[in-house]
Amino acid sequence: MKLTVLSGGVGGARFTRGLLALLAQRLPDGAGGTTAQVTVIANTGDDLWLHGVRVCPDLDTLMYTLGGAVEESQGWGRRDESRRVSDDLAHYGLGWEWFTLGDLDLATHLARTELLRQGLTLSAATVHLAQRWHLPVRLLPMSDDAVETHVETADGQLVHFEEWWVRWRASLPARRFVQVGLNGASPAPGVLEAIAEADVLVVPPSNAVVSVGTILAIPGVREVVAATGAPVVGVSPIIAGAPVRGMLDTCLATIGVAAEAAAVARHYGRRAQGGVLDAWLLDTADADAVPGLAGEGWLVAAAPTLMTDVPAAAGVAEAVLRLVDRLP
Amino acid sequence: MKLTVLSGGVGGARFTRGLLALLAQRLPDGAGGTTAQVTVIANTGDDLWLHGVRVCPDLDTLMYTLGGAVEESQGWGRRDESRRVSDDLAHYGLGWEWFTLGDLDLATHLARTELLRQGLTLSAATVHLAQRWHLPVRLLPMSDDAVETHVETADGQLVHFEEWWVRWRASLPARRFVQVGLNGASPAPGVLEAIAEADVLVVPPSNAVVSVGTILAIPGVREVVAATGAPVVGVSPIIAGAPVRGMLDTCLATIGVAAEAAAVARHYGRRAQGGVLDAWLLDTADADAVPGLAGEGWLVAAAPTLMTDVPAAAGVAEAVLRLVDRLP
Repeated sequence: MKLTVLSGGVGGARFTRGLLALLAQRLPDGAGGTTAQVTVIANTGDDLWLHGVRVCPDLDTLMYTLGGAVEESQGWGRRDESRRVSDDLAHYGLGWEWFTLGDLDLATHLARTELLRQGLTLSAATVHLAQRWHLPVRLLPMSDDAVETHVETADGQLVHFEEWWVRWRASLPARRFVQVGLNGASPAPGVLEAIAEADVLVVPPSNAVVSVGTILAIPGVREVVAATGAPVVGVSPIIAGAPVRGMLDTCLATIGVAAEAAAVARHYGRRAQGGVLDAWLLDTADADAVPGLAGEGWLVAAAPTLMTDVPAAAGVAEAVLRLVDRLP
Repeated sequence: MKLTVLSGGVGGARFTRGLLALLAQRLPDGAGGTTAQVTVIANTGDDLWLHGVRVCPDLDTLMYTLGGAVEESQGWGRRDESRRVSDDLAHYGLGWEWFTLGDLDLATHLARTELLRQGLTLSAATVHLAQRWHLPVRLLPMSDDAVETHVETADGQLVHFEEWWVRWRASLPARRFVQVGLNGASPAPGVLEAIAEADVLVVPPSNAVVSVGTILAIPGVREVVAATGAPVVGVSPIIAGAPVRGMLDTCLATIGVAAEAAAVARHYGRRAQGGVLDAWLLDTADADAVPGLAGEGWLVAAAPTLMTDVPAAAGVAEAVLRLVDRLP
């Protein structure tokens, strides 16, 4: 059984970890893992060059979460992290002190940068880095080309997404998101195949606009999602009218979508009508949206979707697979 | 009074610190410093890109030593250093684990790299970095162009000097040193002026081959040293037939020079005969070489040259200035 996940950072990583826990029970490989093959296609639109090193926030969150090294309390970064380097770096007064650059995380950035400088693609560098963590999934960047999400502010300036998101906490009025480098970009090797050949394709509760939206924007991806024989199930990143994490509501507002579970489903759209999903899982807190979506032809279900721990995330994955079973 | 020093790392840095202590006594500025203007021209031939960041060993040793942040026990690197990043980085198995990449030192490398990526020259980046340390000297890289010393090994391979020096402890048989990038390189802004307009030019007890030798090899530098009106005094980096630090003897052997105080003097040569020095200070342990050198026309003196602490280094500087006074 092949499952492919189109993932941003924390939400996608936690969902995938739950999925793996579920699959280890259902399709055990006898060694604590699963015989199912899980591929995660990661958004790399948040990537940036910082002080000469390449930072890939979502790839790292996935790697640390699935490799057992994540700082659970925040959902990203390394456990037992320290800031010896960045505290000292601040004395040079170069700015970007708002961007957390942990010592252990920096080791990953330096290793990645070394591999890229040796001429490896981001895909190949990711394979190398992932070896250390013995990942139970195949981790693919959406693209080996640099595609960096920027925010066009009200005064027409382009600000890197990480600056808007982390430094300004999404408080700068945004006109639109611009994916710099998108036109010349191609999906990374294996991305289209992992979608086309999947038995199940999942859009986890990641940022629908700048994470999943950016993956779907890579030339060729949306088309193969539309054409795959796999059922495509999405999980709402909105619970009770508010994003589970971060400032997704601001991202949604920027593109004119309400911060509601049903509105995000409609933003993705049904494959039968030119969209990307076949089914939608929303939180029990939003169950009152089920009849309306069902009336529009959606296969939709409500379940607890807050991934407070691995069993809770496995429960979300179980609800996704139940939806798959209900698909024709 | 203007003094200019052509410096490598530890030896040049310690000499310069002693010189500043001496000048603060002789030419005090009333605030603990000196009214004398000291310019240090640093070798940058040991510089390298490592994991995406620009490492400049000699500039950093000078900056930390003259900025009061150096780890005295080793003469380079930061005090209270740690290796959180590099210990973790080693788990990625990329090699170069032999190259010490301290956390605090890494902050400097990251800051420098950021400045270079912003388009600053190495000179301008060095000014920025030096501001933090309130350096009592003007610190100039020998060149803003990348000139990287490599070692041609017996089998014809080119190995970066730092790899040969740090990893192989100069044990790989070397045919010669090659300065990659030398032909297209120019002296950094201010370098030629600092030599031409100096009242005293000092060649401290740095590595005569790969530190001072590399500075002198930058097109135009040797000529302006030959032509400057300043007296040029050298200090022997050899004491009692052995290098004070490192594997200078191996470097000297590679270019066919004996590891003796007199041989190094003759390698530099007297300006009167097309060389670069007017006078030579050697250690009292090598005082038996004085008559021979004097017989060849050298202005030469013996003094304790081991710079065990700042007063000792000030004593070396004092001996240098005594030699200057003896010049015609």
